Amino acid sequence: MRSFFFTFPVYYEDTDAGGIVYHANYLRFAERARTQMLKELGFSNSYFLKSPSPVGFIVHDCALTFKRPARLEDVLTIETKVTKMTGTSLFFSQIVRRGDEELVDMTIRVCTVNERLRPTRLPEELAGFFKDEAV
Amino acid sequence: MRSFFFTFPVYYEDTDAGGIVYHANYLRFAERARTQMLKELGFSNSYFLKSPSPVGFIVHDCALTFKRPARLEDVLTIETKVTKMTGTSLFFSQIVRRGDEELVDMTIRVCTVNERLRPTRLPEELAGFFKDEAV
Amino acid sequence: MRSFFFTFPVYYEDTDAGGIVYHANYLRFAERARTQMLKELGFSNSYFLKSPSPVGFIVHDCALTFKRPARLEDVLTIETKVTKMTGTSLFFSQIVRRGDEELVDMTIRVCTVNERLRPTRLPEELAGFFKDEAV
Amino acid sequence: MRSFFFTFPVYYEDTDAGGIVYHANYLRFAERARTQMLKELGFSNSYFLKSPSPVGFIVHDCALTFKRPARLEDVLTIETKVTKMTGTSLFFSQIVRRGDEELVDMTIRVCTVNERLRPTRLPEELAGFFKDEAV
Repeated sequence: MRSFFFTFPVYYEDTDAGGIVYHANYLRFAERARTQMLKELGFSNSYFLKSPSPVGFIVHDCALTFKRPARLEDVLTIETKVTKMTGTSLFFSQIVRRGDEELVDMTIRVCTVNERLRPTRLPEELAGFFKDEAV
Repeated sequence: MRSFFFTFPVYYEDTDAGGIVYHANYLRFAERARTQMLKELGFSNSYFLKSPSPVGFIVHDCALTFKRPARLEDVLTIETKVTKMTGTSLFFSQIVRRGDEELVDMTIRVCTVNERLRPTRLPEELAGFFKDEAV
Repeated sequence: MRSFFFTFPVYYEDTDAGGIVYHANYLRFAERARTQMLKELGFSNSYFLKSPSPVGFIVHDCALTFKRPARLEDVLTIETKVTKMTGTSLFFSQIVRRGDEELVDMTIRVCTVNERLRPTRLPEELAGFFKDEAV
Repeated sequence: MRSFFFTFPVYYEDTDAGGIVYHANYLRFAERARTQMLKELGFSNSYFLKSPSPVGFIVHDCALTFKRPARLEDVLTIETKVTKMTGTSLFFSQIVRRGDEELVDMTIRVCTVNERLRPTRLPEELAGFFKDEAV
């Protein structure tokens, strides 16, 4: 599966009094990167939300390992890959790096849900894309 | 108009790499205090959102003056007062203190809007309350 | 090990356009609960940061499972337990509930670090406490 | 004074259960835009923080008017201008737009402070730049 890269600087809002990026914020960064990936594939959250059978994405579970801290004005890159697909879920590996240094390692499972937040099948367009691409 | 008081500690998430509370977070604190005020008056955002003519509250404008910084684990208190009422707006004065020290001074205008986010009249229950109370 | 309970309402700032609590915010809630636990044990982050050999706490890794969404003005409770202790780490189980419903299940490993963010031994006071308490 | 432009998309994290961007977040966006402006001028927060006489920037006061809401996946642009300079302060006008529509109007006063957060003179490099540019 090919990798998508998302690069961004660390702002004051992202840091805490320890002088480093507040841990919860990596989940925000990760979602920005997944959104950007969708965009590069030609999709958007809105596209799926506004379809005849609206579909949203919610994080079902995630695991994060914080290896090294990031600091104000560091430029970070997130590498995003889909590692597995089921009928209603996409499994992501997302790695945050500063240059070559690995800072945070994330595995995130995203589910597709309908308007009542019930699990629903991955939209055809996405499933088709990842079926071809995923190992 | 009587004052409402809301007290809370400063957590890591509220601070930035400067070692102080990140300025934007005072608007979050202020909204918690206004929500708590509503609750003490017997109301809630949900109550108004779920009424037959649903009403929401949005901040129309605000002005903040930052006089002294707050730090990790400071215990802060916000004094909230309605200073003026119009047909569609409530004007708040909200002052953040640490003990006797004034840290941040906020004036905030909140408007009532309908489901399409158009200005709509303040709900009777609230208007009635503040008419009696406001000077 | 005994449980600590932390209760709080969901504010607008915690929610997203999906109408539910934004997933990253549960890590913020979890830290508030751990801070409150420390406080009930007679400690604080500042107490350890200002000791002769300053010690800070950082999240080393975490895993979250989102079972049910929380919504605006839900009142949530987090049950926090230390499940394991090593020389430099505390392992937490933190469960978010709305009434009896389990919403989010978190396991979080917190490490103690010195001023250069290097792993350092858990402060005696804390280690002593959890040695007696932990199974 | 010339204008600087900063463009970014609205992510889930930026929105609230009302379906619109949470008002406090515009202050975060505004700081990103000012940081980007510094960068385009060849400076950074770190540059000034690490100078022999370290200087930081803090928001002293601000006023925001919310004219129209922004929504998920809107692409917003902030126009940032320095409108006035004193010995220790920069006054900014920052306007958030979606295409041609003006959404939020901000005036923000940023002060330069030393390590003890006391007001200190604007660094020469910056003052020189804005003296030439400002009207």
